[in-house]
Amino acid sequence: MNKVELSKIVNKIFTNYGLSKSHAKISTDALINAELVGAYGHGLSRLKMYCDRIKKKVINPKPKIKIKKISKSISLIDANDSIGFVAADLAIKQSIENAKKTGIGLVAVKNSGHYGLSGYYAEQAVKKNLITMIYTNAPPAVAPHGSLKSLFGTNPICFGTPSGYKAPFILDTSISMINRGKIRVAARNNKKIPQGVALDKNGKPTTDPKKALEGVQLPIAGYRGSGLAWMVDILSGVLTGGNHAGKVKDPFDDFTGPQNIGHLFIVFKSNLFVKNYKVRIKKNIKIVKKLPKIKSVKNIVYPGENKLNRFKSNLKKNINVSYNIKKDLDLLLS
Amino acid sequence: MNKVELSKIVNKIFTNYGLSKSHAKISTDALINAELVGAYGHGLSRLKMYCDRIKKKVINPKPKIKIKKISKSISLIDANDSIGFVAADLAIKQSIENAKKTGIGLVAVKNSGHYGLSGYYAEQAVKKNLITMIYTNAPPAVAPHGSLKSLFGTNPICFGTPSGYKAPFILDTSISMINRGKIRVAARNNKKIPQGVALDKNGKPTTDPKKALEGVQLPIAGYRGSGLAWMVDILSGVLTGGNHAGKVKDPFDDFTGPQNIGHLFIVFKSNLFVKNYKVRIKKNIKIVKKLPKIKSVKNIVYPGENKLNRFKSNLKKNINVSYNIKKDLDLLLS
Repeated sequence: MNKVELSKIVNKIFTNYGLSKSHAKISTDALINAELVGAYGHGLSRLKMYCDRIKKKVINPKPKIKIKKISKSISLIDANDSIGFVAADLAIKQSIENAKKTGIGLVAVKNSGHYGLSGYYAEQAVKKNLITMIYTNAPPAVAPHGSLKSLFGTNPICFGTPSGYKAPFILDTSISMINRGKIRVAARNNKKIPQGVALDKNGKPTTDPKKALEGVQLPIAGYRGSGLAWMVDILSGVLTGGNHAGKVKDPFDDFTGPQNIGHLFIVFKSNLFVKNYKVRIKKNIKIVKKLPKIKSVKNIVYPGENKLNRFKSNLKKNINVSYNIKKDLDLLLS
Repeated sequence: MNKVELSKIVNKIFTNYGLSKSHAKISTDALINAELVGAYGHGLSRLKMYCDRIKKKVINPKPKIKIKKISKSISLIDANDSIGFVAADLAIKQSIENAKKTGIGLVAVKNSGHYGLSGYYAEQAVKKNLITMIYTNAPPAVAPHGSLKSLFGTNPICFGTPSGYKAPFILDTSISMINRGKIRVAARNNKKIPQGVALDKNGKPTTDPKKALEGVQLPIAGYRGSGLAWMVDILSGVLTGGNHAGKVKDPFDDFTGPQNIGHLFIVFKSNLFVKNYKVRIKKNIKIVKKLPKIKSVKNIVYPGENKLNRFKSNLKKNINVSYNIKKDLDLLLS
């Protein structure tokens, strides 16, 4: 389907469900962007979930969001159970404002929800020559090292910086062996997931996405990844006043209350300590890219490079709307 | 050997090599601490290296360290090729001071050297109820994803927070499958290293630590770990004015100039956004620890917990001084 046409439909659905014009636009843009960068698990496959949560009053379509200034650099946003996109958009903008004034911005968000891709917000900061680190927690998916039960979310670690090249350097990595969204997409499409990335509810390895969703995703790198997931839960949940320690509700399955996800945004100027940051980072990337490669590799790519290529290529095409998504759209429009 | 006695010897060696009393004490304390927490690769096995570098004038024993105030929250330290311990000690203290004044401290360090364990400095901040994130780069050891040549250092990611328990929560994780220090210790003691953690210089898997030191260490989690290593190189090298992109010299092998390692210290108050941070983090940890465990696991531990236990247990004992270390001490005292 044509991108503009699809945007109009999604936007109409969001406003029909009670979102303000500006909130509907922010949310639509985020969903369409996820489709364009090929992160389908964060795209249209989630639209019905958001609408269901609004309908069941666990997302507040007309939130009274409060921004509390802690210092010139530091702010706390109480998102009042808004759709996550709106809270995250506000938070990155506030972080950027704080960083522009004082060199560094630290913004915590509580009472928020799933906001899609951290990298999407990182790009906003990077476009203004800022460096950013973004953390969010998520519903239980990954078992802490040594445990049989999932508790940590896929808790992404996101880092963005100007690169000196066209594509910004955006690392946006889950600490789970597999993205939960990807498992959902596999489940929707009746496809298998790779081996070694998940266990079923009894602790046995599985390639069945439905069993994996009931079971446990494995963290990257054993105790190291488990520690990183724990760090993200602390930074985005414990610190901010958000839910943590496995209390974030699964947005698809649990409508007993708002998610109260927490996020943390750190943004700072890239030229705080050196005058020629862009020259330095460009040189850094150039040196890495010129290293001798293993046989199967044509180009060494930096994080964010492939994403921009996918985005550019997808911009020229229509967005593929699967049968299930089409059904969702029709239902939500009716 | 008795801890006090050994400290005196190391201290005497450092002052003999030209360090001031206070710099010798800072450096000695860091080395002895590494022994006590069982991080032998960062302990006495490095003493001779530091002294050799001072002798060859690539560590400056009498540095004129400059601290430049960028804002109330942000400082840049030019360590003037000091021994890394001294630069890092100054940096964490400056970060703490900035954070206490404004809520957040960001301190970059350039022209520094290897400073041992990030977690050692994190503990200083955590003792004052602060949260900290510390990054440093290191000589080439890990191959970027897709490359045949090592370029990233083992580039640790360190995160520390008060835990509400006796042991602070200190995550101090290398992004390498194995710590370079551990490979060195294995090489010194003619022991093998595990499989799957390193390649020799021709790209073949090896368990020979000497071949691994000439070759490539593997990053954790493939492209994800490679991205994290790259992030650390950018934050600690590109941003600060330090060396980066594989330019940090190996302190053991390359005496052609100072290392010019960069570090980045982020410190902020734990109660910026919630009043009861300690209660929240304690509850978080308690919930994780109470999860059902896999059969072989007795306790789920949080990062830093085992380290404190090792420290306490080792405090009661003498420090084991191997034949090679004894030889170093005798040589350096003569």
